[in-house]
Amino acid sequence: MRTLQVDLGERSYPIYIGGGLLSQAGDYFARHGLSAKSPVLIVTDDNVAPLHLKQVEESLRQAGYSTVVKIVPAGEKSKSLDVFEDVMTAAIEGGLDRKSAVVALGGGVVGDLAGFVAASYMRGVPFVQMPTTILAHDSSVGGKVAVNHRLAKNMIGAFYQPEMVLYDVDTLQTLPEREVRAGLAEVVKHGLIWDEAFTSWCREHTAELLALDPEALGYALTKGCEIKAHVVSRDERENGLRAILNLGHTIGHAIEAIAGYGEYLHGEAISIGMAAAALISVNRGADRSLYEETTSILRGFGLPTIMPEQLDEDKIIGAMMHDKKFKEQQLVFILPKSIGKVEIVSDVKVEEVRRVIRELKEEGQHV
Amino acid sequence: MRTLQVDLGERSYPIYIGGGLLSQAGDYFARHGLSAKSPVLIVTDDNVAPLHLKQVEESLRQAGYSTVVKIVPAGEKSKSLDVFEDVMTAAIEGGLDRKSAVVALGGGVVGDLAGFVAASYMRGVPFVQMPTTILAHDSSVGGKVAVNHRLAKNMIGAFYQPEMVLYDVDTLQTLPEREVRAGLAEVVKHGLIWDEAFTSWCREHTAELLALDPEALGYALTKGCEIKAHVVSRDERENGLRAILNLGHTIGHAIEAIAGYGEYLHGEAISIGMAAAALISVNRGADRSLYEETTSILRGFGLPTIMPEQLDEDKIIGAMMHDKKFKEQQLVFILPKSIGKVEIVSDVKVEEVRRVIRELKEEGQHV
Ligand SMILES: NC(=O)c1ccc[n+]([C@@H]2O[C@H](COP(=O)([O-])OP(=O)(O)OC[C@H]3O[C@@H](n4cnc5c(N)ncnc54)[C@H](O)[C@@H]3O)[C@@H](O)[C@H]2O)c1
Ligand SMILES: NC(=O)c1ccc[n+]([C@@H]2O[C@H](COP(=O)([O-])OP(=O)(O)OC[C@H]3O[C@@H](n4cnc5c(N)ncnc54)[C@H](O)[C@@H]3O)[C@@H](O)[C@H]2O)c1
Ligand SMILES: [Zn+2]
Ligand SMILES: [Zn+2]
Repeated sequence: MRTLQVDLGERSYPIYIGGGLLSQAGDYFARHGLSAKSPVLIVTDDNVAPLHLKQVEESLRQAGYSTVVKIVPAGEKSKSLDVFEDVMTAAIEGGLDRKSAVVALGGGVVGDLAGFVAASYMRGVPFVQMPTTILAHDSSVGGKVAVNHRLAKNMIGAFYQPEMVLYDVDTLQTLPEREVRAGLAEVVKHGLIWDEAFTSWCREHTAELLALDPEALGYALTKGCEIKAHVVSRDERENGLRAILNLGHTIGHAIEAIAGYGEYLHGEAISIGMAAAALISVNRGADRSLYEETTSILRGFGLPTIMPEQLDEDKIIGAMMHDKKFKEQQLVFILPKSIGKVEIVSDVKVEEVRRVIRELKEEGQHV
Repeated sequence: MRTLQVDLGERSYPIYIGGGLLSQAGDYFARHGLSAKSPVLIVTDDNVAPLHLKQVEESLRQAGYSTVVKIVPAGEKSKSLDVFEDVMTAAIEGGLDRKSAVVALGGGVVGDLAGFVAASYMRGVPFVQMPTTILAHDSSVGGKVAVNHRLAKNMIGAFYQPEMVLYDVDTLQTLPEREVRAGLAEVVKHGLIWDEAFTSWCREHTAELLALDPEALGYALTKGCEIKAHVVSRDERENGLRAILNLGHTIGHAIEAIAGYGEYLHGEAISIGMAAAALISVNRGADRSLYEETTSILRGFGLPTIMPEQLDEDKIIGAMMHDKKFKEQQLVFILPKSIGKVEIVSDVKVEEVRRVIRELKEEGQHV
């Protein structure tokens, strides 16, 4: 079992990464001083519930906690204000009070949704993350919680840190293969923005990671969390440095939004976004190998790196205008300088983005 | 013009109280460094808009700010997730970015709603309060923002501090008389919890306050804000002391909820709640004069102090169970000890509350 401390002053919290953690949930709750007099709300989705809910419930009950469960439909569509309201209803009807914990048992969708519930229920109650996807190594660090607005992703939310993260890697064994690949996109991203050696390690261990080898997975998730925690602890509310975590996300979010939430997995969309960012850098003078290497690693994980023909250029641009990175009428982009190094560039012109959209569509025709 | 600093470390902010402030809004924005490159969203209601919106818009425009306006229906019903979503839509469509300010121009309803929008839009943007009711002297201090859930009031929200509060007392001249009385209930509350001398002052200046005499009003609002700011700065997130601000609110909120939001004004409901709290204290051994004095001041302002016959006892009790003050299955109450002094009591039995509900209904039959 690995423990990682996310260092945020009085909002610091630990991430426990290892096997068999869900069945020890009750112990961890007690150790963290969470009130056993107050009902605990477990939020999960209808894929995860039949697989992993029971052991969490049992462990909590054995430790003297009463539980209320809210199962939401699986998928990005549950990150809506409507489902948010449903979860609030469950919390009120379940008698949650100000000392009650809200648990997110699931992937990033459940984490973001339940996290915003925890942030907002009675103006804030304790929050515990139990990630069950690879991608959630990312969403469980940094305290960003949110739901989507129909016009733009993650538009409504908060910065809200959990009490702890219980990351039981055993749960990942039941994850569909497509989700495994998509989740690894964020792991690769953490290498690309910060750590050339870790990026090489990912390339060399692609097969083990895709096979969910526990040792490789444990290492990669810890490393990914570590890089993110490092960046976040220097810039909790995204005033500067933290923006580098958005490599691939400006275009990625636009792809997700216009294709309809859920059509592309988040990891797939940002994989295309990372390819696009590398190509913008190349068009600005970087060596073409930067783009080649980036896309070759991503393709190694079975991730997409071309722009799908059916995604309309104007719509992609339009969706980007709503993005939070569109600051004071300027387009802010995270661009790679070399593998393991990025920069925040605030003068990217819309025309540059249009160009790589077209170029990445052409790439598709060569495949 | 009076200036009051609310002291909350790096979240400190000033409250400006005086005449003619709305037409200087642009100057204050510039002085506080709010971005003129980013559109400002003004949230107001359909009563306030025709009376006071124009001068704010003009002043902001003159200072170089572009504005987006969202007018919501007047009344408590706008503190809903549905209206919250509408305001979010306006913010996105208006192109607000992370440096955009959200302005609440109106009473407590607009303040709480727009405040929660500011707290949640892109996970938090600058917030400016421009209160236009007397009651809003209360809601503009302390950073509590929220919308209601159909099952309970203020259930969904955040702690979020404004950049500044511009309290233009000239706007109060257009306030309906019933709203004036209800607003003064919170002013009286601030005296009752903290300051015997100020309570006496309120009793002696009842006529001036009801006549909206600018000097008396300016003094009372400053004093009310001051008391609240003092309490809040010692306990920003309501872990202890801050609870005393809830004098009259446990029963008051229950009355508002079961009568249907909007039937009783907030100030009217807490006036009954303060009478009830005093009577619980008397039933626990305090001198009956505590109850007599409390209700005589409130009645002087034309506020209700009896329990309306049509409000069902069981429903009131049921609604209280959802209240945030219902902590770990115990009923926490704020009870007066003497005029200007209260205590937080955590062992109030449901039976004691039932008794005062009945007693306050009987009072009604003597009138
Ligand atoms: N808050 C942040 O900082 C942050 C960071 C990155 C991504 N995100 C968000 O995370 C979301 C994507 O997360 P995700 O990819 O985990 O999506 P997800 O939560 O939808 O999970 C993916 C799918 O896998 C299923 N699943 C989850 N765990 C499983 C398991 N152990 N076994 C079998 N099936 C399982 C889910 O039911 C779902 O169908 C997006 O909404 C994204 O915006 C947030
Ligand atoms: N956040 C807090 O700390 C806090 C504290 C106390 C109350 N509140 C909330 O405040 C709300 C009540 O506030 P309120 O009494 O100001 O209600 P309100 O905002 O509904 O205003 C009362 C009425 O007066 C009208 N109005 C407002 N200003 C006017 C003006 N200058 N001229 C003419 N009409 C005007 C409004 O349109 C409305 O019809 C409740 O929702 C309560 O929960 C919040
Ligand atoms: Zn991401
Ligand atoms: Zn109040």
